[in-house]
Amino acid sequence: MPPIRIALAQVNPTVGDIAGNTAIVRDWTRRAADAGAQLVAFPEMMLTGYPIEDLAFRASFVAASRAALEVLAADLAAGGLGELVVVVGYLGKVVESADRLGVPKGSPQNCAGVLHGGRVVARYAKHHLPNYGVFDEARYFVSGDTMEVVQVAGVDVALCICEDLWQDGPSLAARASGAGLLLVINGSPFEANKDDVRLELVSARAREAGCALAYVNMVGGQDELVFDGDSIVVDRSGAVIARAAQFADELLVCDLDLPAARSVDELRTDAATGLRIHHVTGADAAAVAREPVHASIAPRLDDRGEIWQALVTGLRDYVRKNGFRSVLLGMSGGIDSTVVAALACDAVGAADVYGVSNPSAWSSEHSRSDAADQAARTGLHLRTVPIANLVEAFQAAIHLDGLALENLQARIRAVIWMGLSNQEGHLVLACGNKSELAVGYSTIYGDAVGGFAPIKDLLKTQVWELARWRNAEAERRGEVPPIPPGTITKEPSAELRPGQRDTDSLPPYRLLDDVLDDYIEHDHGSRQLVEAGFAPELVDRVLQLTDRAEYKRRQYPPGPKISSRNFGRDRRLPITSAWREHSEPRRTS
Amino acid sequence: MPPIRIALAQVNPTVGDIAGNTAIVRDWTRRAADAGAQLVAFPEMMLTGYPIEDLAFRASFVAASRAALEVLAADLAAGGLGELVVVVGYLGKVVESADRLGVPKGSPQNCAGVLHGGRVVARYAKHHLPNYGVFDEARYFVSGDTMEVVQVAGVDVALCICEDLWQDGPSLAARASGAGLLLVINGSPFEANKDDVRLELVSARAREAGCALAYVNMVGGQDELVFDGDSIVVDRSGAVIARAAQFADELLVCDLDLPAARSVDELRTDAATGLRIHHVTGADAAAVAREPVHASIAPRLDDRGEIWQALVTGLRDYVRKNGFRSVLLGMSGGIDSTVVAALACDAVGAADVYGVSNPSAWSSEHSRSDAADQAARTGLHLRTVPIANLVEAFQAAIHLDGLALENLQARIRAVIWMGLSNQEGHLVLACGNKSELAVGYSTIYGDAVGGFAPIKDLLKTQVWELARWRNAEAERRGEVPPIPPGTITKEPSAELRPGQRDTDSLPPYRLLDDVLDDYIEHDHGSRQLVEAGFAPELVDRVLQLTDRAEYKRRQYPPGPKISSRNFGRDRRLPITSAWREHSEPRRTS
Repeated sequence: MPPIRIALAQVNPTVGDIAGNTAIVRDWTRRAADAGAQLVAFPEMMLTGYPIEDLAFRASFVAASRAALEVLAADLAAGGLGELVVVVGYLGKVVESADRLGVPKGSPQNCAGVLHGGRVVARYAKHHLPNYGVFDEARYFVSGDTMEVVQVAGVDVALCICEDLWQDGPSLAARASGAGLLLVINGSPFEANKDDVRLELVSARAREAGCALAYVNMVGGQDELVFDGDSIVVDRSGAVIARAAQFADELLVCDLDLPAARSVDELRTDAATGLRIHHVTGADAAAVAREPVHASIAPRLDDRGEIWQALVTGLRDYVRKNGFRSVLLGMSGGIDSTVVAALACDAVGAADVYGVSNPSAWSSEHSRSDAADQAARTGLHLRTVPIANLVEAFQAAIHLDGLALENLQARIRAVIWMGLSNQEGHLVLACGNKSELAVGYSTIYGDAVGGFAPIKDLLKTQVWELARWRNAEAERRGEVPPIPPGTITKEPSAELRPGQRDTDSLPPYRLLDDVLDDYIEHDHGSRQLVEAGFAPELVDRVLQLTDRAEYKRRQYPPGPKISSRNFGRDRRLPITSAWREHSEPRRTS
Repeated sequence: MPPIRIALAQVNPTVGDIAGNTAIVRDWTRRAADAGAQLVAFPEMMLTGYPIEDLAFRASFVAASRAALEVLAADLAAGGLGELVVVVGYLGKVVESADRLGVPKGSPQNCAGVLHGGRVVARYAKHHLPNYGVFDEARYFVSGDTMEVVQVAGVDVALCICEDLWQDGPSLAARASGAGLLLVINGSPFEANKDDVRLELVSARAREAGCALAYVNMVGGQDELVFDGDSIVVDRSGAVIARAAQFADELLVCDLDLPAARSVDELRTDAATGLRIHHVTGADAAAVAREPVHASIAPRLDDRGEIWQALVTGLRDYVRKNGFRSVLLGMSGGIDSTVVAALACDAVGAADVYGVSNPSAWSSEHSRSDAADQAARTGLHLRTVPIANLVEAFQAAIHLDGLALENLQARIRAVIWMGLSNQEGHLVLACGNKSELAVGYSTIYGDAVGGFAPIKDLLKTQVWELARWRNAEAERRGEVPPIPPGTITKEPSAELRPGQRDTDSLPPYRLLDDVLDDYIEHDHGSRQLVEAGFAPELVDRVLQLTDRAEYKRRQYPPGPKISSRNFGRDRRLPITSAWREHSEPRRTS
């Protein structure tokens, strides 16, 4: 049983920043070498970031990724790191077997490269291309058809990429290949509680493969997606040997004693799975360091803590990776903007958070005082720009009433926020939650403006829960709770007309959110909802409001996905649609 | 050679309106019967509209589509139309062979149903699922694996659906099946000059199949897509027998003399193509009418005429299918809003077009007079709401300058348009063109507001061309040209500061559009562009402007696709991306 020390580099690449991502690989390979590792693995599409969407079609981008891989191999060797085996995700293309199934030569592939001795000694192309939910890989990539098994330090290491692990086949092929380790590189986005599912999967596949399994995932935010890390190493029984923290860069190092490699160098087809297996020998790594390493198993965040951290990570990376330093948001004193302000303080620091309070004739006193209270609690900047005069000026030009007048106020506020953003360079944050977005309870070009919408995938009841959680967390740490308690307990109101309450227009949020969860995340139709016990009138109303608000959602800014189906990449509906769910059965013609 | 009369129903379904779409099928089947047809074919996904996007995942929607098909068959028979064979697209699901390739039973399929004698006598599931460009069918559907050949009036008719015709296989299987007619039902969206490609394809596939080919396409607009009809019948040599008009409902009827059907009723696998071929006998249709029908071949629109008509169709259907009656737009006197106003008059009639002129301190006299001139030419409603006072009111509250002040004006105008829209119920139109959208030369939440953007896929030079074409067309018809000639010839300016010209910030449009065309529609990188003769500084500047404006495009309203790659469904890029094309080669690490 040869001993092998492996390192999983749980890092944060940026889409398109090939130079920067390559620099991360160089730095962390050095760290892995310093830790005595013989093998270091980086996430899926490490060199390009992930997901790259239609950049996959840019020949110049594919060429840059492929060239960067070769240069990286040479640079590592030149830097004395040639003995370490480095597995790294990159954007490749079909070079050989160009006529396979009519696949054109040059088609992009989602690849893992194995670097050793200054060269790329093996390349693996992802077999299973996810094309559901937020994934569109069938649009971009051509599947690989060969499993690569690379001998590292006397151990056979089989490779696969992300979705390959979720599908049957690769783990059985790993078993057939006699590999001692199945190494999986990933770009697996966060969803609430996905870490539990992921651990179960990793353990089950290790048992299927009959070998240890190492799973490395990226961290960081990319538009709507947040990657939570949670890299894992399990033994052949599926027991956890090492596990990295969530949402943090980490080099996860552990020692494994694995079966000796077979001495073959061949390409054969496995009878059971039909997969081609390519055994590569010769990636002999340096001998393992003498002192055994202590493999760490990071504690898990609790359910609310991991959602909070996902939102902070998504926001921070959107700001940073898009070249902003500061954010601006309208602070109404309501729970939504209060929670967004608290998230922003955690993401970029209160010194770079600019709140704007825009009281109207109908704003309550507590709205103003709650915003000021939060500024005092956190240290964020707050300024006040009243809008009564502006409302009057518009009313003199075009006289509006009813909903049009309510929207006017929201839009005047937006003009102020965008003006200050343009003048001072802040990213504007939209503060809408998923319940509002669902039923269209927002003003397009009003409160809906912004470059990023941190809580758009949180139902209103989750907003309250997280507010309570964040304050409790502050108390636990001996810090000032960032959220004025009154904003959590007061009745929600848009304050766009005297005495307005959200429940004038909407069902109570606890009820609304239950319906929305079933409708949006589980595709339940109205009959199913009524069978589940919801009142038919409620169901019809909520579903019709939701269906009719699609046009607003299309123009809403992106925000971090934390649910199993977010508005955006995950749920894609036509704007023009006459389909209306009805709680009563009806003849369709 | 049995004679057969076929009818292709080129009609306009609405996504989600199963009852309405079914009613169209009933009405047009009656018309086909009155015309003596023995077979009538409707477009792809006729009962549900197309594309339905994630509605495919709604079990209630799939069930409604499948039920509607059965009810339709019974209703047609009850109405005395049972003898006519009706081929109609619908949303089906995997019922049999549920374990094929691990496909779960109940997975949605894109189907054609054959109705006869009150029953569904055959069902065909689309084999080739397009997953490129604007298409995402691999996300939604499971492929069929059997070719259906149905005997109609003594002729073997083989079926396929849209993309099936663009891929090799089905035409060869049609030949192998000995079919006399290959019938293709389609939901094929418009692109400039696609009709030429389509005719070539139809002719070539007819020759391959060795039989006549009938191609029926839908018409109408659905969000970003416009379907142009252009239904075609060719003989086995590929020669056109009948062809429907573009962008118009039409029942295309023609008589064919085709080889007699084989008398088989079997399921077998074709050795050459590997396809399963299912021969169904028994759909005996009524005898052909005695009087031969005159098959019409509609004249083609010219290149500009077809683009204009695509934009009119897309706009008209977006308005109508979303329940609006009227539109509102800001009329700056510039060429873009002038062309949008002319399109709107053609789409919904001038009586339902509401223009708003919002002169500022820096608006030129001709801007105001050109808007008034167009109102006089067309009869659209025009009102003027000056914004100088509103600008002053905002400046008193937050003092802005430079670009922030320019944007302020655009946003004040947007607040007025949206207020009037909310108050009066008009759909707001955004007037941006593709060149502006590309380089980000627009104000988000300012001129970019609206529910629909009719010219967002027209480059600026195309806007001018179409303006000239539309005026010439009016003159040809003896009508008043709708576009004031001065708006076509004057220098473009946003008029957001004194003496401003577009060329202060942008290259001349002719040059800009040439670069954009290569970059956006053809994915040329900067080195290719420089090799093509563009100046490196120009290329770097245009590409960087374009890359950095992605966040604005994400929040821009939808508009009709007329190019081979529109912003929206067609071109999908990350907002967060550090990838920058450079005209000079560089080391990537």
